[in-house]
Amino acid sequence: MDTLQKGWFTEFSPDDLEVINNAASGDSKQLKSDGVEMGGAWPGQAFSLQVDEVLFHEKSKYQDVLVFKSRTYGNVLVLDGIIQCTERDEAAYQEMLAHLPMFAHPNPKRVLIIGGGDGGILREVLKHPSVEHVTMCEIDEMVIDVSKKWLPKMAAEFGNPKLNLFIGDGFEFLKAHKNEFDVVITDSSDPVGPAESLFGKSYYQLLSDALRDGGILSSQGECPWLDGNLIHTMNVFCKEIFANVKYAIGSVPTYTSGTMGYFVCSQERDVTTPARTLTSEEVQKWGLRFYNSSLHSAAFVLPTFVQQALEGKQSS
Amino acid sequence: MDTLQKGWFTEFSPDDLEVINNAASGDSKQLKSDGVEMGGAWPGQAFSLQVDEVLFHEKSKYQDVLVFKSRTYGNVLVLDGIIQCTERDEAAYQEMLAHLPMFAHPNPKRVLIIGGGDGGILREVLKHPSVEHVTMCEIDEMVIDVSKKWLPKMAAEFGNPKLNLFIGDGFEFLKAHKNEFDVVITDSSDPVGPAESLFGKSYYQLLSDALRDGGILSSQGECPWLDGNLIHTMNVFCKEIFANVKYAIGSVPTYTSGTMGYFVCSQERDVTTPARTLTSEEVQKWGLRFYNSSLHSAAFVLPTFVQQALEGKQSS
Repeated sequence: MDTLQKGWFTEFSPDDLEVINNAASGDSKQLKSDGVEMGGAWPGQAFSLQVDEVLFHEKSKYQDVLVFKSRTYGNVLVLDGIIQCTERDEAAYQEMLAHLPMFAHPNPKRVLIIGGGDGGILREVLKHPSVEHVTMCEIDEMVIDVSKKWLPKMAAEFGNPKLNLFIGDGFEFLKAHKNEFDVVITDSSDPVGPAESLFGKSYYQLLSDALRDGGILSSQGECPWLDGNLIHTMNVFCKEIFANVKYAIGSVPTYTSGTMGYFVCSQERDVTTPARTLTSEEVQKWGLRFYNSSLHSAAFVLPTFVQQALEGKQSS
Repeated sequence: MDTLQKGWFTEFSPDDLEVINNAASGDSKQLKSDGVEMGGAWPGQAFSLQVDEVLFHEKSKYQDVLVFKSRTYGNVLVLDGIIQCTERDEAAYQEMLAHLPMFAHPNPKRVLIIGGGDGGILREVLKHPSVEHVTMCEIDEMVIDVSKKWLPKMAAEFGNPKLNLFIGDGFEFLKAHKNEFDVVITDSSDPVGPAESLFGKSYYQLLSDALRDGGILSSQGECPWLDGNLIHTMNVFCKEIFANVKYAIGSVPTYTSGTMGYFVCSQERDVTTPARTLTSEEVQKWGLRFYNSSLHSAAFVLPTFVQQALEGKQSS
């Protein structure tokens, strides 16, 4: 079982991969612990996609960037060995992370995206006619470049005149931007590697400062099946900063364990009810494959173990 | 990539496995088509669990039965190469399939389970104090035997005096049982192998006949990401039989693509609203890790592509 062999790409947990690589190189160092305490690990399980062709594989300044054409999921972007998106199921993630905060806001004009280099969140945000300016701060330009080339349906809006694109660190960017945005969306990779600083309390304090009155943020909230400790920690510190902190979940087959969580926070607004709703005809016109106005509220109704995880009462 | 090697079990789509086995044996026969039209196939993707120890591996009269101790998911039951349940996440499936119909009924006394040999559905059904008799019809006694030995938390209620256990074919069993049950739950494997007859219209007509007035059925409804054609077909013929046909979804990480669908049908009742609700204290007392009364209704609120699949309007 190697990550890319015999025509299959396999996504291992980073700690398992270390063991496998050490074994292959003859290094006797074994696994330090059964999982990274703060998220981003899934020891003992792996997901594989069959590869038709490797389209791109290079190391950027920040991470290992791989794009391959899969047999049944379209083109696939992989960063540091972890699947970021596939053309077949990307809508499930992009639509929920973007439209939960966007529709909870009655009139979002200025939007900030931290990360999001594949362009999928940008594409969804720009579907809202109220939007006047979108700022994106992505740390790794190579992700944008490969997405423009290999994921054209996601990267379709990088030429949009409403976009201000900054290449740089989201944490640093926020320090210079206060009281500017109606919606801030953090579309990051796991909290291992370049995105690590985006999962701490100081980052959420900066996000809070960047929002205008009535502003809303959303962030990828990892997988509740795997990252209970992380989402509990995030839930606790977000509640110290925001009056309303909610967690939604949705299905994304090619993310580990198939379920993705989303934190949505605001000082002033109830984020679980859409401030604007779409008819079935509008859902179709917008090309929405996952999000709809009924699902908005239902996504915040959580299985028992997710409620318990958020409260730090994990059953097992 | 073989199914059980180098310390990992890999669940391939049955059609992919055929190709892999043929290649290994030098047979030049290649894949016939990109997926089984009527469900039960997921070409080009695979899920793996790390194996600590193979506990049992034999062929029964009907199928290949494998139980292994996994590194991080407890003991795992595999039939014909497909994961049926793991100790870590089984509650997600058992609780939804059992409690959606059970709580939609105000007073379920007589319950029939078709399949369910691991005992998990039986365990959940017997939590309802109104239940007087549970009949289970499981075709493969070996599944019950290995579950009693290796999945004791699931198979905990096979000694319960309320249980009537029949070893035999569910389809044949139903022909002799009319107007008998308040709830009928079909807990089957995929529509390939011994469970194939449980996905056709004639089976659902028999289910309808087996229900008493006000009765409700639930059935595993495969994965909406993979089996759109099947769930559309089932939705159409169920609506020819039942006045109320609803589809719910829930997360189950070790089922293919991580999402499971559930058909819940009734002539008389609205199945999307629980007829009885549980307080948080009761949820805890019942030991429910997934189901709760708010989730009951939310589970029937579907992503756009699932609505489209049910209606036969798949976007891609």
